[in-house]
Amino acid sequence: MEKNRLEAFSDGVLAIIITIMVLEIKVPRGEEWSDLQGLVPKFISYILSFLYIGIYWGNHHHLVHTASRVTSYIMLANLNLLFWLSLIPFTTGWMGESHFAQKPVALYSANLLLAGIAYFILQKAIEKTVVPDNKLVKALQKLSYKGIISQIAYAISIPLAFVFPLVSVAISFIIAIIWLIPDKGIERAMD
Amino acid sequence: MEKNRLEAFSDGVLAIIITIMVLEIKVPRGEEWSDLQGLVPKFISYILSFLYIGIYWGNHHHLVHTASRVTSYIMLANLNLLFWLSLIPFTTGWMGESHFAQKPVALYSANLLLAGIAYFILQKAIEKTVVPDNKLVKALQKLSYKGIISQIAYAISIPLAFVFPLVSVAISFIIAIIWLIPDKGIERAMD
Amino acid sequence: MEKNRLEAFSDGVLAIIITIMVLEIKVPRGEEWSDLQGLVPKFISYILSFLYIGIYWGNHHHLVHTASRVTSYIMLANLNLLFWLSLIPFTTGWMGESHFAQKPVALYSANLLLAGIAYFILQKAIEKTVVPDNKLVKALQKLSYKGIISQIAYAISIPLAFVFPLVSVAISFIIAIIWLIPDKGIERAMD
Amino acid sequence: MEKNRLEAFSDGVLAIIITIMVLEIKVPRGEEWSDLQGLVPKFISYILSFLYIGIYWGNHHHLVHTASRVTSYIMLANLNLLFWLSLIPFTTGWMGESHFAQKPVALYSANLLLAGIAYFILQKAIEKTVVPDNKLVKALQKLSYKGIISQIAYAISIPLAFVFPLVSVAISFIIAIIWLIPDKGIERAMD
Repeated sequence: MEKNRLEAFSDGVLAIIITIMVLEIKVPRGEEWSDLQGLVPKFISYILSFLYIGIYWGNHHHLVHTASRVTSYIMLANLNLLFWLSLIPFTTGWMGESHFAQKPVALYSANLLLAGIAYFILQKAIEKTVVPDNKLVKALQKLSYKGIISQIAYAISIPLAFVFPLVSVAISFIIAIIWLIPDKGIERAMD
Repeated sequence: MEKNRLEAFSDGVLAIIITIMVLEIKVPRGEEWSDLQGLVPKFISYILSFLYIGIYWGNHHHLVHTASRVTSYIMLANLNLLFWLSLIPFTTGWMGESHFAQKPVALYSANLLLAGIAYFILQKAIEKTVVPDNKLVKALQKLSYKGIISQIAYAISIPLAFVFPLVSVAISFIIAIIWLIPDKGIERAMD
Repeated sequence: MEKNRLEAFSDGVLAIIITIMVLEIKVPRGEEWSDLQGLVPKFISYILSFLYIGIYWGNHHHLVHTASRVTSYIMLANLNLLFWLSLIPFTTGWMGESHFAQKPVALYSANLLLAGIAYFILQKAIEKTVVPDNKLVKALQKLSYKGIISQIAYAISIPLAFVFPLVSVAISFIIAIIWLIPDKGIERAMD
Repeated sequence: MEKNRLEAFSDGVLAIIITIMVLEIKVPRGEEWSDLQGLVPKFISYILSFLYIGIYWGNHHHLVHTASRVTSYIMLANLNLLFWLSLIPFTTGWMGESHFAQKPVALYSANLLLAGIAYFILQKAIEKTVVPDNKLVKALQKLSYKGIISQIAYAISIPLAFVFPLVSVAISFIIAIIWLIPDKGIERAMD
């Protein structure tokens, strides 16, 4: 039951984050296609962040599934992850509003990096509670290399944004798509 | 448990979508009935979208009920559906704000069409996991003709909106009402 | 499980309604107590609507508890109730914004009346499915007189608002407080 | 089941409160770091309130866990707590908007005090229903001294805010951090 409530609260926060981001795309006054043009960078930012929150939800789902109990430390680590994710609507909005300007893109990449680190901390906190020979745990551990590559990519994206902001955005998109491809190890472990 | 969390997250997102749409109807400054007049198109748009999100919630409810397990592919297809539904508050807002102008109505119909296609993809993903002779599955498959008719109607509504936008809106309302009528096949299968 | 999901979706919508209403109380620019003065009618309206949504949540909770299964008709009746409740943030905002002007107060009372009727319809839909000699069902039926008195009070409040709007608001407050007093019949039935 | 729904509704409200606070940090127009400068007090206020709502969620979680049944009185006491917590986004926004001015900080401390008192009332309501020799109950009772110290600190913070508002803010931060440190008594009781 403990675990259920941690999931319910996290699902609630993630569901709200993913949905309120759309409020940042303000309805334009005019009624022409051209009135939507200025919203294109906001819309692209929205898609990117929607993918990330969706991916976090899926991974969080699998991760908490492996926890055998909920310690105070897991609750803290989970709250820390939700904090960084709760800033995504703001950094997404700034990136879109500024039409992918250097500093907003750098801040967005930094937000992804910090959320990634928070996820890693949560994973370690949960791993301490799990039965070691659990198939799903092993499948998630194999996925850790994906996490490390992602963190390195975000870390590179931050300084890169000051030179080529659109390349930084492209990197974030590529990482998101890599995560979207279902992992066969997890699929097998869930069967 | 897997299924429960997919439902919980989807329910959360749908509950937020259905509720934040009302935030688009801004409280007027004046205190006369005439101050509400400008809000009538927004209010009508709100009713239409409230019905659609409500219908999607009900159908999603029955559909996920039939899934025997949650694959990564189902999670992706579900996220895709939620993405198109998450744009409904924006397209609803634009349609209402523009008092049912041609292009906003066309975009709204396109949104309904894309959400409909996403639902169809989710249905196919779930059908792969189900026990073939399940009564509810069969009842849902019989409903597919309703889905195909709806998709055709939305597809016609898009070009039609450039000539008679109000007819397009009327078509969306009629399709919504058709879906609201309880289906006896499902009723029997649920018993 | 069916029932759980109806509850989850309704709880989600009610939780969002009760919380987004606070967004209508905009943070003032100044930093003096006098800057809060203009917000007092909004704050009073917020308290009133918070009580109502809270009461609806509690009663909905008991009511759905008695349902033995969820029919399509119950789902429709529930959606209808949520629709009228979803308008509460708007009518609350207009009443507060206008400092309890006649027409906004009349509209607010009308909203309460329509939500009350929608609740009555849901109650009838659920009563059809219940085991007749259920103790909780009987306790809820005994409460019906409270519902009828409330509907009459709201119906009177609508025309009254055009003469004495503050009296209408007072009536809404009194009805809310009557509902807040725990009912001993339900208490016993729940034990 | 009763208890589950009380938790679900409370979790929903808390999840929304914690997430909508971020909407108060408006995306700036410019794209320079200096454009973010004016947001720093809002951001600090957000962190503080995020911690408090997170702490309330965790404690509420443990507290409701101990209830053996949900009485009408518990439902009222819970609604009362949610009411005071629902005002946190407003008082947080005012405190941040005013850059920690005296009166907004005093109001924020008052809000924390009132939420703390509401929590205490809920605790007493739940204690009446519990099995007396429950280990978790005893661990929570031992925590009561922390609650009393916090209430005293908030009560001192209110007048203090009129002289040294930043000291009041610092006190609120210190109390939050004290609550964040996992309590070993509860940890043991949960095992």
